[in-house]
Amino acid sequence: MRITVLAGGVGAARFLRGLKAEAPDADITVIGNTGDDIILFGLHVSPDLDTVMYTLGGGISEEQGWGRADETFTVLKELAAYHTGPDWFSLGDRDFATHITRTSMLSEGASLSAATAVLCQRSQPGVTLIPMSDDPVETHVILQDGPVLPESTGSLGSTGRRTVHFQEWWVRLHAAVPAAGFVLAGAEDAAPAPGVLEAIDGADVVLFPPSNPVVSVGTILAVPGIADAVRAKTVVGVSPIIGGAPVRGMADACLAAIGVPATAQAVAAHYGPGLLNGWLVDEQDKAAVDAPELAGITVRALPLYMSSLPATAAIARGALDLAQELRA
Amino acid sequence: MRITVLAGGVGAARFLRGLKAEAPDADITVIGNTGDDIILFGLHVSPDLDTVMYTLGGGISEEQGWGRADETFTVLKELAAYHTGPDWFSLGDRDFATHITRTSMLSEGASLSAATAVLCQRSQPGVTLIPMSDDPVETHVILQDGPVLPESTGSLGSTGRRTVHFQEWWVRLHAAVPAAGFVLAGAEDAAPAPGVLEAIDGADVVLFPPSNPVVSVGTILAVPGIADAVRAKTVVGVSPIIGGAPVRGMADACLAAIGVPATAQAVAAHYGPGLLNGWLVDEQDKAAVDAPELAGITVRALPLYMSSLPATAAIARGALDLAQELRA
Repeated sequence: MRITVLAGGVGAARFLRGLKAEAPDADITVIGNTGDDIILFGLHVSPDLDTVMYTLGGGISEEQGWGRADETFTVLKELAAYHTGPDWFSLGDRDFATHITRTSMLSEGASLSAATAVLCQRSQPGVTLIPMSDDPVETHVILQDGPVLPESTGSLGSTGRRTVHFQEWWVRLHAAVPAAGFVLAGAEDAAPAPGVLEAIDGADVVLFPPSNPVVSVGTILAVPGIADAVRAKTVVGVSPIIGGAPVRGMADACLAAIGVPATAQAVAAHYGPGLLNGWLVDEQDKAAVDAPELAGITVRALPLYMSSLPATAAIARGALDLAQELRA
Repeated sequence: MRITVLAGGVGAARFLRGLKAEAPDADITVIGNTGDDIILFGLHVSPDLDTVMYTLGGGISEEQGWGRADETFTVLKELAAYHTGPDWFSLGDRDFATHITRTSMLSEGASLSAATAVLCQRSQPGVTLIPMSDDPVETHVILQDGPVLPESTGSLGSTGRRTVHFQEWWVRLHAAVPAAGFVLAGAEDAAPAPGVLEAIDGADVVLFPPSNPVVSVGTILAVPGIADAVRAKTVVGVSPIIGGAPVRGMADACLAAIGVPATAQAVAAHYGPGLLNGWLVDEQDKAAVDAPELAGITVRALPLYMSSLPATAAIARGALDLAQELRA
């Protein structure tokens, strides 16, 4: 069985653990969001790719959900003494080695997907992990209000005075300053990385894990060619919203920025029946099952909290079963 | 008093400590050798600049003479797990922060001298430290014999099959494979960094510390314009050779490669009276004082082992006194 997953960071990584447990023989390709990528201290940091890699390949900090376990922070402390780079992004010494390796390869002309493959050779995540694109795409956040930051960390040029790199909004401002919208700088000119369209075309099912529908799955779908390829497939998504609140992260702040209510139902309607064939919601959102707005999407309610590996595997099973039904 | 010093690594750094102690009010400019610079793990490493900076600014590993004290090696271990870069060059976590800062600035278009100034803002070495050039110059070693290495770490192109980057010869091969000569790749097209010629022109005295005369002082002098500027000044050198052996390092291996005997006298003759006005030798080499080959160079014998700060300060005092006499 060939499964292709469009993945953000922590939520996707946890879901993928359950999927691997439930479908150990499946050929799983993960297309990772790189819109959150950022140059920090001159190094190319790919938060979502690394979260998937560390979670599936071992070494993830289970407490944080991102970064490496047993971290030390010697390099970061020294960089702070040199006043190099921002002081609001935490990178541990082990993690630095990943970014140094990636940046070194990129500076020698390798593509991001080639660098990702080398990193995965060591990490062995048990899935094929591909960035959505080898071209730079940067999610910028247009701030509705609040302070004009002294500098933006975005490297692709911003679209206005109050526009900051996604990480600056997410990590530095904790998404507390309302966003008026997002700009996917570079997306229009980006091409899917080698293997992305092939993995979608060849998949028996495409899954949307409970990732942020705006700045994770939405960003991947914004790379020209990917949404069209996905539309041609059987697609089942797992709601990242339970009972009107994100399972984790601040997806509600992102949905608010694009005028979508933070409900399981509204997120499915946002994807739309042209893209989404099946949708898993939590039992407390089972009203969505018969919602007329979701005509054309088969909705199923089941427990969606990824509270343990068995619970997460059951969600993955639910998604695969629904996909099976939809294909039949 | 304005003093300008052409410096290599450990020997120069120790001498400079003595010089600062002996002449605390002097305005000291250190022109550092960058021919040993190397790209490791995609990062720009400047061993000699850092040794001077760490030694004078604090934080040097006193046991090693280079690198930072109290080092940990988390990043390097992780890089090894990724099979990134060579396994024969040791870099600690604290040290990595220096190279990340430098590389980050260079990648944003800053010059090496600008990056060095920023690093020194934190380190406060108490001297003005300037790289010999902002242009890339790489010392390559032509191996006389021995194994053809699988790959060379030189990035400026090698001149033959058996040519390796200096660090590869020095650190990986421990200078045990005889060298047939050196190539200073890039030197012909390099310009002195901003401030280098001004520091020499404006100096009351130019000092050669007991650095390697071939691959440290010799490399600096190979940057077009520097040797001519030095020739116009009162120049006093401190012999790096005592009793026919280098005080530290493997200067004898370098001298052998260019056909110069490893004696205090031969090194002075190699520099020549056109460049060198005064020369300090150790008491055991006092035969050099009246050597006819050194006509035109005023040679003085005194204890030259830098065994303590007072002993080193006395050597610096000897150099300054001799310069004073020569100028009078």
